[in-house]
Amino acid sequence: MISDFANLRINSERLRQNFNELSQIGATVGGGVSRLALSNEDLEARAWFGNQLDMAGLVIGDDDAGNLSGILISQHHEAEKTILLGSHLDSVPNGGRYDSSIGLLAGLEVLHTIRESGLNLPVHLEVIDFTDEEGCWHSLFGSKSLTGKLDPSALRDSTEVHETGAFRAALFRAGIRPNDVYKAARNPSTLAGYLELHIEQGNRLYRTNNSIGIVSGIVGRSTYEFQFLGEASHSGTTDNTMRRDALRGAADFITQAHNMVGEVDTDAIFNCGQIHVEPGAFNVIPSKARLIAECRHPDEDTLTMIEERLVKLAEESAYKHRIAVKPRRLVHMPAAKMSPLAISSIAAATRQLGINNVLHLTSFAGHDAQMLSSFTPTGMIFVPSVNGISHNPKEFTEWDDIINGVNVLLHATIELAFRSQQINNNNNHHG
Amino acid sequence: MISDFANLRINSERLRQNFNELSQIGATVGGGVSRLALSNEDLEARAWFGNQLDMAGLVIGDDDAGNLSGILISQHHEAEKTILLGSHLDSVPNGGRYDSSIGLLAGLEVLHTIRESGLNLPVHLEVIDFTDEEGCWHSLFGSKSLTGKLDPSALRDSTEVHETGAFRAALFRAGIRPNDVYKAARNPSTLAGYLELHIEQGNRLYRTNNSIGIVSGIVGRSTYEFQFLGEASHSGTTDNTMRRDALRGAADFITQAHNMVGEVDTDAIFNCGQIHVEPGAFNVIPSKARLIAECRHPDEDTLTMIEERLVKLAEESAYKHRIAVKPRRLVHMPAAKMSPLAISSIAAATRQLGINNVLHLTSFAGHDAQMLSSFTPTGMIFVPSVNGISHNPKEFTEWDDIINGVNVLLHATIELAFRSQQINNNNNHHG
Repeated sequence: MISDFANLRINSERLRQNFNELSQIGATVGGGVSRLALSNEDLEARAWFGNQLDMAGLVIGDDDAGNLSGILISQHHEAEKTILLGSHLDSVPNGGRYDSSIGLLAGLEVLHTIRESGLNLPVHLEVIDFTDEEGCWHSLFGSKSLTGKLDPSALRDSTEVHETGAFRAALFRAGIRPNDVYKAARNPSTLAGYLELHIEQGNRLYRTNNSIGIVSGIVGRSTYEFQFLGEASHSGTTDNTMRRDALRGAADFITQAHNMVGEVDTDAIFNCGQIHVEPGAFNVIPSKARLIAECRHPDEDTLTMIEERLVKLAEESAYKHRIAVKPRRLVHMPAAKMSPLAISSIAAATRQLGINNVLHLTSFAGHDAQMLSSFTPTGMIFVPSVNGISHNPKEFTEWDDIINGVNVLLHATIELAFRSQQINNNNNHHG
Repeated sequence: MISDFANLRINSERLRQNFNELSQIGATVGGGVSRLALSNEDLEARAWFGNQLDMAGLVIGDDDAGNLSGILISQHHEAEKTILLGSHLDSVPNGGRYDSSIGLLAGLEVLHTIRESGLNLPVHLEVIDFTDEEGCWHSLFGSKSLTGKLDPSALRDSTEVHETGAFRAALFRAGIRPNDVYKAARNPSTLAGYLELHIEQGNRLYRTNNSIGIVSGIVGRSTYEFQFLGEASHSGTTDNTMRRDALRGAADFITQAHNMVGEVDTDAIFNCGQIHVEPGAFNVIPSKARLIAECRHPDEDTLTMIEERLVKLAEESAYKHRIAVKPRRLVHMPAAKMSPLAISSIAAATRQLGINNVLHLTSFAGHDAQMLSSFTPTGMIFVPSVNGISHNPKEFTEWDDIINGVNVLLHATIELAFRSQQINNNNNHHG
């Protein structure tokens, strides 16, 4: 049955036109996009995407967490479950055009292609935009809600970046009622799997001249707030032995944290992306330096070890400079493994398309797939990022690589549909 | 003539009442004050001070730079010149109550005491509040204007902290017309000297159990902006060899700058009081870190050497982390020497009062005296700061030390009045 459709290919012109249209929403001067979750630009992009779903003849889904989807109902007599094809419309501030939007448009294009081909899969297909993947308010908000893993405190307590009040107001404005978000949780037995195409955002595919990456796992990530607390005093007159400079301690910690993480292994990541200093006058010794930092590692135990060392380094830096430090873990995303079923479906798709330059790799970025992975068979396909640049207007992926990747998503979806159905049947026979 | 008034002492009750009243203006929760130059609180403090000058029967002076003064006209037949007794009402954000206000109230109290005593000095006396000593807009704005040293660009170009437009608006609101500020410049031949009492803001007097400090010189200060420029990229996916992290470079520089300055000598000071990171997201590698830093040293040549090393360190840190740096000097206050005439007048006053625990020292804080020192014979008296804490609500000076210091200012003023008159007469006889 699959062989009949071996030559099926997506419509790259339609994909390109959609990409160009979407890139205009929240476009920034340097060629990037700013579509922060729940912002006007994000809502505009959803409206545009909703129209596309409508025009594609899909059934619109709009759950209580603001996840927006289009469903292709299968006419197959055995179709019960659904394969989700997802990604997200939101971006980081002044991010690139490819991050995520390519994956969502790929899902839409796969549904278009399958519908037009008349292929009757034994599963329903659903392309889905997840709310706030990037964590402008709460990382992976939509996929956490769908998998029932959103901690209710997320809607009650202040988040990594924002106060709860502002978050709730932004949700309301987007038509999401905080108290109803829990209703977005689905039953995993209704799903046959989750696939996501994404740009790599690193340079491993590009550097090694591979065109397709099959993700084996996603790094775990922990985000911390470190508050270094010293004492404000006159910068000129305070004796050197009396200075309790919060920024000096924080700077020392940042330098040492980078060095320490660099010594763990090449898979260990540390980033300090923000720091606020008080009182902030050039002639006053800083009394407070509040920084937000994160670490990542594909192995959960190593991640825990890195976290322990970071907290220890912060305490040592504070002690050395006669100040105090308060570390606080804000977020923990556990390392995730992709499903062997999804991985083998993607691998089969690449073989069917005659693609040889395929690399199995770890994702160093978090993705909604991280939440889905313990919920339903989950797989991710990566396409190369030129020079590995992402979260930047210069983010770029060759158009041929995108077409290639979307065709892999198409055939991986078909493979997964039949393989999961086979497992389902076997289970039924055995059960 | 002086001997008749050897037992003259200030009215410490009146001084204390004035201090308590002034401390209420811009009072902060922790016992400090926020009276930023040209703010509502600063304007309120000026109004209060103006009333005090009025009630003291002084002639009000109000120049085109917003410097507010009260003049005690001498009836002495030879009185031509004026001795200024100054300080300032403005404070740093959430600073202490003693910084500067004590000096200004001391000047007022000296005028009160001399007027009441009937002592007829051969000079006029003028207590003066200088505008924006702290540099909320432009450091030493008032004293620079009075001495004709304000660079016109200060009113045209953006300053260390603020945009010109906001600065001009704030000046206008305070009744100061930017285009008329130059009119505040005085002729040095009209002055006989400048004396200022101030808290030390360091801990040398306190540590060594001295009650009076006679300032020999004031440190030079240079303030810099360093812009570290890297590249924004996804914090998780960017290869470690490709990261161009502006904050990592800035943190390395801050650490090294502190270490380098610490190795110069114990008189060398470095402070980085502010840093701004862009784009500022926890999961994006910082593309820009803009920091404001300053260095101080009592010797002008050493200060120049420190500045050169700082710029070199910034460039080395940038190179090491594959980023760029743009250093820019925003302010330079040259190191200043106090006048031997003023120093000897203060020393004579301490002897007359029987004070033995006197220390000659360098000021590590900038003061209006820095601008006056090359204009008219200038001297400064320091009183001890408990634990050396300043620019902080915990700033504290024992009341007995304050009374002691104000009595020294009283007698130093009398000494300087007669000594400068003597020099004047000698010059006239010789000339």
